[in-house]
Amino acid sequence: MAPFLSKRDLQFQLFEVLDTARLPERPRFAEHSREVYQDILNVAYGVAEKYFANHARAADVNEPHIEGGKVKLLPEAKQALEAFRDAGFFSAHHDEALGGLQLPWVVMQAVQAHFQAANPGTSSYSFLTIGNANLQRVFASPEQQEKYMRPLLEGRWFGTMALSEPHAGSGLADITTTATPREDGTYSITGTKMWISGGEHELSENIVHLVLARIKGAPAGVKGISLFLVPRYRIDADGSVGQGEAKQSNHVVLAGLNHKMGHRGTTNTLLNFGEGGETIGELVGEPGRGLAQMFHMMNEARIGVGMGAVMSGYAGYLASLEYARDRRQGRPASNRDPQAEPVPIIEHADVRRMLLRQKVFVEGGLSLALYAASLVDDLNTGPEDGRADTALLLDLLTPIAKSWPSKYSQEALSDAIQVMGGAGYTRDTPVEMYYRDNRLNPIHEGTEGIQGNDLLGRKLTQASGRGLEVLLARMEADLQAAEGHEELADIRAGLQEAIRQSTAALQSLLRRAPELGPDLFLANANAALDMVGHTVVGWMWLRQALAAARALPEARSSDRDFYQGKLHAARFFARYELPRVRTWAELLASADPTTLEMQESWF
Amino acid sequence: MAPFLSKRDLQFQLFEVLDTARLPERPRFAEHSREVYQDILNVAYGVAEKYFANHARAADVNEPHIEGGKVKLLPEAKQALEAFRDAGFFSAHHDEALGGLQLPWVVMQAVQAHFQAANPGTSSYSFLTIGNANLQRVFASPEQQEKYMRPLLEGRWFGTMALSEPHAGSGLADITTTATPREDGTYSITGTKMWISGGEHELSENIVHLVLARIKGAPAGVKGISLFLVPRYRIDADGSVGQGEAKQSNHVVLAGLNHKMGHRGTTNTLLNFGEGGETIGELVGEPGRGLAQMFHMMNEARIGVGMGAVMSGYAGYLASLEYARDRRQGRPASNRDPQAEPVPIIEHADVRRMLLRQKVFVEGGLSLALYAASLVDDLNTGPEDGRADTALLLDLLTPIAKSWPSKYSQEALSDAIQVMGGAGYTRDTPVEMYYRDNRLNPIHEGTEGIQGNDLLGRKLTQASGRGLEVLLARMEADLQAAEGHEELADIRAGLQEAIRQSTAALQSLLRRAPELGPDLFLANANAALDMVGHTVVGWMWLRQALAAARALPEARSSDRDFYQGKLHAARFFARYELPRVRTWAELLASADPTTLEMQESWF
Repeated sequence: MAPFLSKRDLQFQLFEVLDTARLPERPRFAEHSREVYQDILNVAYGVAEKYFANHARAADVNEPHIEGGKVKLLPEAKQALEAFRDAGFFSAHHDEALGGLQLPWVVMQAVQAHFQAANPGTSSYSFLTIGNANLQRVFASPEQQEKYMRPLLEGRWFGTMALSEPHAGSGLADITTTATPREDGTYSITGTKMWISGGEHELSENIVHLVLARIKGAPAGVKGISLFLVPRYRIDADGSVGQGEAKQSNHVVLAGLNHKMGHRGTTNTLLNFGEGGETIGELVGEPGRGLAQMFHMMNEARIGVGMGAVMSGYAGYLASLEYARDRRQGRPASNRDPQAEPVPIIEHADVRRMLLRQKVFVEGGLSLALYAASLVDDLNTGPEDGRADTALLLDLLTPIAKSWPSKYSQEALSDAIQVMGGAGYTRDTPVEMYYRDNRLNPIHEGTEGIQGNDLLGRKLTQASGRGLEVLLARMEADLQAAEGHEELADIRAGLQEAIRQSTAALQSLLRRAPELGPDLFLANANAALDMVGHTVVGWMWLRQALAAARALPEARSSDRDFYQGKLHAARFFARYELPRVRTWAELLASADPTTLEMQESWF
Repeated sequence: MAPFLSKRDLQFQLFEVLDTARLPERPRFAEHSREVYQDILNVAYGVAEKYFANHARAADVNEPHIEGGKVKLLPEAKQALEAFRDAGFFSAHHDEALGGLQLPWVVMQAVQAHFQAANPGTSSYSFLTIGNANLQRVFASPEQQEKYMRPLLEGRWFGTMALSEPHAGSGLADITTTATPREDGTYSITGTKMWISGGEHELSENIVHLVLARIKGAPAGVKGISLFLVPRYRIDADGSVGQGEAKQSNHVVLAGLNHKMGHRGTTNTLLNFGEGGETIGELVGEPGRGLAQMFHMMNEARIGVGMGAVMSGYAGYLASLEYARDRRQGRPASNRDPQAEPVPIIEHADVRRMLLRQKVFVEGGLSLALYAASLVDDLNTGPEDGRADTALLLDLLTPIAKSWPSKYSQEALSDAIQVMGGAGYTRDTPVEMYYRDNRLNPIHEGTEGIQGNDLLGRKLTQASGRGLEVLLARMEADLQAAEGHEELADIRAGLQEAIRQSTAALQSLLRRAPELGPDLFLANANAALDMVGHTVVGWMWLRQALAAARALPEARSSDRDFYQGKLHAARFFARYELPRVRTWAELLASADPTTLEMQESWF
C-alpha cells in the first residue's frame, strides 16, 4: 500500500522552501525548534496512519445512517478522534494558558494535512471543531469562550458551521432562520439549515453550532445577519451537559442525512432549529456582523479545503506512482521486439506525462497551501510594519488557495485513475474513492464561481489593488533571487511571461471596468481564477526549484534525486502548464460577452 | 425528471446536418424514408424510457453479485433486453434475409444512443452482442455464422469480446491464452481473461465469447494471435444448448467480478478458460489474423464508446439545465437590492458558461459520433470511387471519435455537478452517477494513451498522409459553403486559425520525425489528440452552425430559439475552446522532450 503522504516533501516545503525553522525567533514560538516541529509531525503521521488511514475505505462503504433516531458511524471514527484529541491536536496552536502548544499555523496546517490525506471524511470533524473554536477565540466573549470554546479545545465537544438553508446555499443574503430575543438576553432560534457537515452524531458529548440567523425585524440582505452559538444539548451552570438520558435537548432536530458521491465519512445533515421545543442560542458580538464574523472561519476553512484537496490529490499521485513502477506492460516505440520483456509502465512517455502532471498539481498545491498558512502566521506574529500588506496578500490568495487545488487535484486524480487503467476504476484500489471525495472540494465553502467573483470583483481591486502589487513584488523578488541559476531559466522565463500576460489582461480589464459595468466585468471571472492561479503556482514552482537548485550541490545521493525531480517538475510546469495562461489572459482582456448574450430560451 | 436525450437535436443532427434523409436513394435503403427512420427512433425512445431509464439508478445501487455460483442481476435488466429484442434492434441493420431492416449504421447508432443515454450499464449487453455479430458477419464462415451469429441476431444469445488478460491490458501483444488443436479441427482453449464485460450472467441462453489466443507454437507478438469463437455452453448439432440442467458447460469459469466506480450494471468478469474440463473453441478465419480481425469489432466499439460518452454527458447536461432554470439563488452583480427576488441561476454568467461548455461538448460530440457513423455507411453503400478516401478518413477520425467525447463529456459532467452544487454531489440526483459511469470511457476499448499513439503514430501518416488530406479538403469545403454567412464569421475564423496552427505543427513534427526517432516523435501524442480533436469538433460546430443559419430565415418560432442556440454555441466554441488549439500545437511542434528526460528515480 502506497503511503498517504510524502514526509520528504513536507520537510522540503516547510524547512527548505518556507522559513518555518526560523519561526522560533519570534517570541510566541520561543520554546520551539525545528526538532520540536519535526517530532509533532511524526506523531501526526503515526496517529493518521494507525487511526485514520485504517478505516478510510470502510467509512466510504458504511456511510453514516440513522439507527434508532441516532446517527450511526463506524466505531473507528470515534477511536480516531479520541487519538487525535489525546495527541493534543485540537488545541495545539492555542495559547499555553489554554492548554495549547502555541504551534504556528503553518505547522498546524501541516499536522491537519496528515489527517486529511489519510481520511478526509473522519478528519472533517476535527477540522470543523478547530475552525469553530478559532472563530470563538476572536469574536466570542470571555464567558462564551469559557462555556463553548474550552470543551472544543479539549476535544470533548465538536463544532459545526451552519450557514446554508434549503433555498439559500451560495446566496446567503437570503437566509431566513430567525432569532427572537428572550428576556435573559439569549435568543430563540427557528429555521432549517442544509448541508451541515458534522451536524449530528454521537462522537462527542455535545455539538456547538455556529448559526447564521436574522434577529426579528433585522433588515433584508447581509446586513441583517447575525451569528449565534447554539449547542445541541443545553449546558448546565457548571458548563456540563450531563450524561445519557440526563442530557437536555436544545431542540436542534435531525431532519435528514444527505447521501453523497464521496466524502461519505462526514455525516452531512438537514437540521431543524426549534422543533418540538425551544432552541436557545447566544449572540456572538454585535448584531448584523454575522457574515463578516463567519468569514473569519470561512477564510480559514477555504485554505483548509484547499489543503484537503491537495492531500487527496497527493495520496492518489503516490498510489498511481507505486503502481506505475510495479506494473509491466508494453514496450517503448523504439523497441518493437516482441521477445523483449514488457517494461514498467513508468517508462512510457504518456504515463510519465500523467505522473508529472499529478506531481506539479499536488506539490504545487501543497506549496501554495503552506504558503498561505505561513501568511496567517506573519499576520499574527510577523513584523508589525508588514502586516497590512500581508493581510491583503492573504486575502488575494485565499480564493486561489481554495479553488486551484480543488480543481487541479481533480485533474490529477483523473490522471491517477488513468495511469492505473481498469484497476484504477475499481474499488479494489483507493484512487476512485479519492476522485469521488475530492469532487466535493470545488463546491463546499464557496463554489468555484463564488471564488472567481471574490478574486476578480473584490480581492484584486480592494485597497486600490495593493494586494496585487504586493504579490507582484514578492514574485519579482524570487525571480531576481533565481537569476544566475542556469537550470532555472525555463521556469523563470515561463513565469515572467505569465506575469506579463496576466497583469496586462487585468490592467486592460480594470481600465474598461466603468464602461463594461459589473456584469460584463465579472462575466469571465473563472478565467481570472485560472490565470492568476496558474501564475501563482508557477511562482510556487520557482520557489521550490530555487530551493532545490541551492541544495543540490551539497546534497547526498538520495536527496539528489529528490531535488532533480523538483527541478524537472518545475520545467514541466513551465513548458506544459504555464503556456495555458495566455489563452485565459486573452479571453479575460477581451471582456467576451458570449455568456451574457446567451438567451435562456436558446438552450 | 429531465429527459435523457434531446429528440430535437437528434433530428437536427441526422436530417439537417447530415444527409440521412437521402440515404434511401441508395439501393440497400430503397425501402426506407425519413419517416421510417423517425418511427424507429420513436420506438427506441419509448423502449429506452420504459425499460432502460427505469432502473438506471437501481442497477447502480444493486450491482451484479454472485449468488449460488451465478451472477445475479436486477430482473429489470432482463426485461429491458427482451424489450430491445422484441423491437428487433439486435438485427435491425442486417440484411432482410437475416431478419433485419437493413438500417443504415448512422440510424442504428442513433437507436443505440437512446439506450446508452437511458442506462449505459444495461445497454452494454446489447452493444457487445451487436458488435460481436458484426465481426462474425465479416470474418466467420457461413457455418459459423449460422451457428454463432444467428442466435445473437435473434437476441437469444449474447456476445462478448475477450482480449485482456491479468498481465496484459493495453499490451495485447503479450497475451498467453493458448489454443491447442483438436483432432476435429476445433481448439482447446486454456488461459485467463480479465475485464470481460458481460462475461457471465443469466440474461441469455448462451454467451458467445470472441477470444484472442495463441495457437500452440505460434510466434511471439501480435503475429501469433488468432481469434476464436468460444461458447459458454456447448452447442448441439441442431444449434441449441438445451435447457437448465441439460446445458453442457464449455468450462469457461467465472473466477471473479470486478467492482467498479460506475457503469455498475455491466457485469465485468475474470474468466478462466479450460477450468474443470475442456473449453472448446473454433478458429475464425486464418491463424495469426486475430488482432486485425478483432479490430473490426474494436473500431466499431471505439466509435460506440464515444457515442456512449456523448450520451452520458448529454443526459447530465439536460439534468443540470433543468435544475438551472428552476433553482433560484442570488442576483446579478448589477442588482444588489436585497429586496429583489433571487433569480434562476441560469441568469448568472458563470452558470451560463458551464451550461454552454456542456452544450458545445455534448452536441459537438454527438455531431462527431454520427458523422463517423455516416462514414461507415458511405464505406459500405456510398459511391464506389470515394470509398478508399472514406476508409482513410474514418480510420483517422476513429481515435478522436473515441477519446474526445470520453474526455470532454467528463468535463461536461463535472460542470453539470457544479451547476447543481451540493445537490449535484448527492445521489438524489443522477449527475454524480453519470460522472462515475463516464469515467470508464477514457479507459476501456483502448485508453487515451493508446488513442494518441494510434492517431499520431499511425492514422496521420498512413497512405502518405492521405487521410489528413481528405479531412482538410472536407473542412475546406464546409468553410467555403459558410462564406457569406455573416453570423458564422467567428466560427469560420476560429476554425481556419485552428486548422492553420494544427497543420503547421503536424508538418513541422513530421518533417523532423527521422531525426527525433519514434519515442520523441510520439512523446506528445496526447497533445495531438487534443489539438486535432478540438479542430475536428470546431468543424462539427461549423457544420451545425451552417445548417442553423440556413434554416433560420424560414423557421417557426420555437425552432428559431433552437437555431439561435446552435449559432451562439458555435460562437462560444470558437471564442472559448478553439483558442486552446494554439497551446497544443506549439507543444507538439516543439517536440518537447521533458517527459522522456524525466528519470524514474526523480519521482
